[in-house]
Amino acid sequence: MLAQYQQQTECLVALDSIIFGFDGLELKLLLVNRGVEVDKQTWSLMGGWLTPTESLAQAADRILYELTGLRDIYLEQLHTFGEPLRDPVQRTVSVAYFALVNVQDYEQKISDTFHANWFSLNELPELLFDHRDMVKMAIKSLRYKASQHPIGFELLPQKFTIPQLQKLYEAIFGTTIDKRNFSRKILSTNLLLKLDEKHRGSSKKGAFLYEVNKEKYSQQFNSFMNFMAS
Amino acid sequence: MLAQYQQQTECLVALDSIIFGFDGLELKLLLVNRGVEVDKQTWSLMGGWLTPTESLAQAADRILYELTGLRDIYLEQLHTFGEPLRDPVQRTVSVAYFALVNVQDYEQKISDTFHANWFSLNELPELLFDHRDMVKMAIKSLRYKASQHPIGFELLPQKFTIPQLQKLYEAIFGTTIDKRNFSRKILSTNLLLKLDEKHRGSSKKGAFLYEVNKEKYSQQFNSFMNFMAS
Repeated sequence: MLAQYQQQTECLVALDSIIFGFDGLELKLLLVNRGVEVDKQTWSLMGGWLTPTESLAQAADRILYELTGLRDIYLEQLHTFGEPLRDPVQRTVSVAYFALVNVQDYEQKISDTFHANWFSLNELPELLFDHRDMVKMAIKSLRYKASQHPIGFELLPQKFTIPQLQKLYEAIFGTTIDKRNFSRKILSTNLLLKLDEKHRGSSKKGAFLYEVNKEKYSQQFNSFMNFMAS
Repeated sequence: MLAQYQQQTECLVALDSIIFGFDGLELKLLLVNRGVEVDKQTWSLMGGWLTPTESLAQAADRILYELTGLRDIYLEQLHTFGEPLRDPVQRTVSVAYFALVNVQDYEQKISDTFHANWFSLNELPELLFDHRDMVKMAIKSLRYKASQHPIGFELLPQKFTIPQLQKLYEAIFGTTIDKRNFSRKILSTNLLLKLDEKHRGSSKKGAFLYEVNKEKYSQQFNSFMNFMAS
């Protein structure tokens, strides 16, 4: 503000939200077809412009609602992207937000009036501008969080099996994890309560159901598990 | 971009950097006097405007250099602040960056031609706009990092004592830590190598010097220590 006052530049500010969904097996990404204005093959994150009276978070919420009908999703600010030529039409700085949701909870709410679709992370179409960089950074952030916190629990049914939890971690890290190793590590956190019930869907023998020990969970939310590091 | 195209707003984009410094005893914050344009009592983070051809990180680097003469400090993007009325003159979105440096390394480089000064975190003057919120968020981020990673090591001399390291952690967390507890926890990480030398400055008996076990440090950078949680 002291020097080079004359050089300051007016920008548009965009909000782009990366919505990951877990469907029980894999991680998906919610994209919207922006065919109308750009070209029909280009998909986009949940993006739009900041308007004069909104805060950044309010704008991100509104844009997600306008594009998908989804409301009340906690969007976390990820990073702001500002390469000079990221938008070839006009200098635009984009504030990226992200969230991780359960696909089943939201599938029906995304009505057909919207042009939004879930894509497998392994089969993403071409994305607008630097949206692929945004997705990469969001995955990195998700993995970092998942290595420390039991973030995944919120994406599973209230009662779940260890194999279901393992599927979620495998989806987040895009890898397979040794079954016994995973089971040993997750149980050593003492964050799970073993129930007297079994889930019969997956095998004849069935798998024991667990639920989160909520008291310990909140006590230990700042105590890091670090599954993946060793 | 689909709806409400007409409502998009042109903003100025500011960069504001929060530079923390450790002087061996306490954490300080680098502020600059913006008296020329606002009022003489108001201090500011290292702030300025984005210009047309810069990326956000380039602009933050340039602004820090222009205001302090400091170069080659790794600035990490913290958060973007965009409340509609945060700057009363014009709608401005500010991308905040932060860094933690050793005060001794930089004191002499901040020449008298600049109006920058180090302030104790406990005695901050009135700050411009929402800069106090930015500082609060940066402290939170610093504490979170310090609870997981040995980030502090880079702020100490190559050989240091456990009490010196403890001072740094106490400065970051703004608290006193039990001496034996700290010593036990930090040694249990196996990240320190005990040397055969003693530092005689602090007491007659002296305190053993340690250095970072660099091999283990890089191996374990993703393994979290979590001093403060328990």
